[in-house]
Amino acid sequence: MAIKTRLTDFFGIAHPIILAPMTPAAGGALASAVADAGALGLLGGGYADRQWYDEQRGKVTNPKVGCGFITWAVENDPELFDRALQDLPKAMMMSFSDPAKLAPRVKAAGVPLICQIHTLEHAKRAIDVGADVLVAQGTEAGGHGLTARSTMPFVPSVVDLVSRTAPSVLVVAAGGIADGRGLAASLMLGADGILMGTRFWATQESLIHQAAKDKVVAASGDETIRTTVYDIVREKAWPEIYTGRLLRNDFISKWHGRESELRTMHQDERAKVDAAWESGDYDTANVTVGEAVGLINDLPSARDVVTRTIEEASHRLTAYSPSLRLAS
Amino acid sequence: MAIKTRLTDFFGIAHPIILAPMTPAAGGALASAVADAGALGLLGGGYADRQWYDEQRGKVTNPKVGCGFITWAVENDPELFDRALQDLPKAMMMSFSDPAKLAPRVKAAGVPLICQIHTLEHAKRAIDVGADVLVAQGTEAGGHGLTARSTMPFVPSVVDLVSRTAPSVLVVAAGGIADGRGLAASLMLGADGILMGTRFWATQESLIHQAAKDKVVAASGDETIRTTVYDIVREKAWPEIYTGRLLRNDFISKWHGRESELRTMHQDERAKVDAAWESGDYDTANVTVGEAVGLINDLPSARDVVTRTIEEASHRLTAYSPSLRLAS
Repeated sequence: MAIKTRLTDFFGIAHPIILAPMTPAAGGALASAVADAGALGLLGGGYADRQWYDEQRGKVTNPKVGCGFITWAVENDPELFDRALQDLPKAMMMSFSDPAKLAPRVKAAGVPLICQIHTLEHAKRAIDVGADVLVAQGTEAGGHGLTARSTMPFVPSVVDLVSRTAPSVLVVAAGGIADGRGLAASLMLGADGILMGTRFWATQESLIHQAAKDKVVAASGDETIRTTVYDIVREKAWPEIYTGRLLRNDFISKWHGRESELRTMHQDERAKVDAAWESGDYDTANVTVGEAVGLINDLPSARDVVTRTIEEASHRLTAYSPSLRLAS
Repeated sequence: MAIKTRLTDFFGIAHPIILAPMTPAAGGALASAVADAGALGLLGGGYADRQWYDEQRGKVTNPKVGCGFITWAVENDPELFDRALQDLPKAMMMSFSDPAKLAPRVKAAGVPLICQIHTLEHAKRAIDVGADVLVAQGTEAGGHGLTARSTMPFVPSVVDLVSRTAPSVLVVAAGGIADGRGLAASLMLGADGILMGTRFWATQESLIHQAAKDKVVAASGDETIRTTVYDIVREKAWPEIYTGRLLRNDFISKWHGRESELRTMHQDERAKVDAAWESGDYDTANVTVGEAVGLINDLPSARDVVTRTIEEASHRLTAYSPSLRLAS
């Protein structure tokens, strides 16, 4: 079974699926496993931590892996950014804040540029700076994002914008997609493929503590929330508009809505969060996943995720007979 | 062209599309036009205003029209509720708050019960009280709702819940759907059909001032927001968890985030809002639409909406050849 789209053509990959460059889940092992399975693996460059990058880049075993960074964070280390463009030239994905400053480096290196977008204004800006692929991400996605748009109406709006103004630019749907139903739905909306975070986060290869993975397998999709409490505790310099979607836990119950107070005591709380992260106490440490958690009931290999997603989507996409009755 | 699903079978309708029972947009003319086009038209009973109900019920010209109410509002007038069950027995839709109190009247009348749901907990409750159809509505929808879930991940979660616990119950997707792409995507997610609000709001038959319709045609999907400012001004007794998605305007810019202050001066502001509603000044009066506004560029008849949606969805659903390459 294979689903061919403009995205598979553009990257020369078997399946129209991209791994979200999640930090720390998407290390060398996960990115390589996704690439081995015929999808596009992206290393989670995140906040541009050189030590993490070097270690995980060393574990990349497939030459077709690309990389992704948080734009405002990697702007502080353009040398690392350039290194990633050389090391992992399959693709560079930039997420959060204006890509204009670094985009010329990507274009000059001849590396495909993927820009994550959360609004139509972001889409226009990404097109202007030369994006080859727009990842249209809804608010249901895990990790950082906006509350601005949801995937179902956002993707076709971006498709319409692109077809009017830059028809060669590809559109990838992200947010709330964890299986073949989501892939098939995204193709119906006009997307050229999907990007999945949470589904790959909950795999064998992802660099996440087993206790956190177990929590995700047990969780319902009703149990996530957008909050800034962990960014406050960790003193991350996120632009104010961004929040992170996480699994609700005791720490969030305690501090969400009390952000000012948390700011005054973030050092004590940070020590607790760091210790909890090490020990696997996810009542206190963060579990960074989206609403798609409700569609996840196991911890397969990344390859199994790709295979299942394609098989389920293929089945659905061909289930309508000429009489248009869905086969049961 | 026709798309047959369990929903078309259940209601004996031609197309798996339901009109959201919006107040005041979905009056007798719109509900009848939707039914005439072969979809399920629901009169917008809303806050259970008897005068409005009588007037608009008198304009229903198709015997296959049903009705919908805001549950907590119509609980104050069970006599009107019973009247609607007699007058418009095609279906009763209940939205917002626990349906347990009134559901037995619907079942006793032998009228199909549609329950709008915003979380999996709502879904379980609706199944328990005998719902025949669950409308799984994401936060991108216009009007009242929750920020809890988005359509893309919520619908398959509800489908999974229903197939485990109550497989005869039907699931309808709502929120962010305005065209055949959204219908095709919803079917891929496992839904039996769709409910559309905003798309039908922006039709010839809807009971909305032309100036508001014109604003919607011009608006982008980035321009909506969830807020409570109009509920405060109008002293509506909405349970605290609910907010309404509306098109941003001057009034919202002024008052959103200043709700406490607005509470102290709501009478003055209400006079302004009421006058603006009459005169067609939608910088001050509310324009109650969802993110799907970004997919709307015209004001067709309700029949044209139904026809186009089915044609576009049919085209998409059959566009995958056996080789699974989307025909362009």
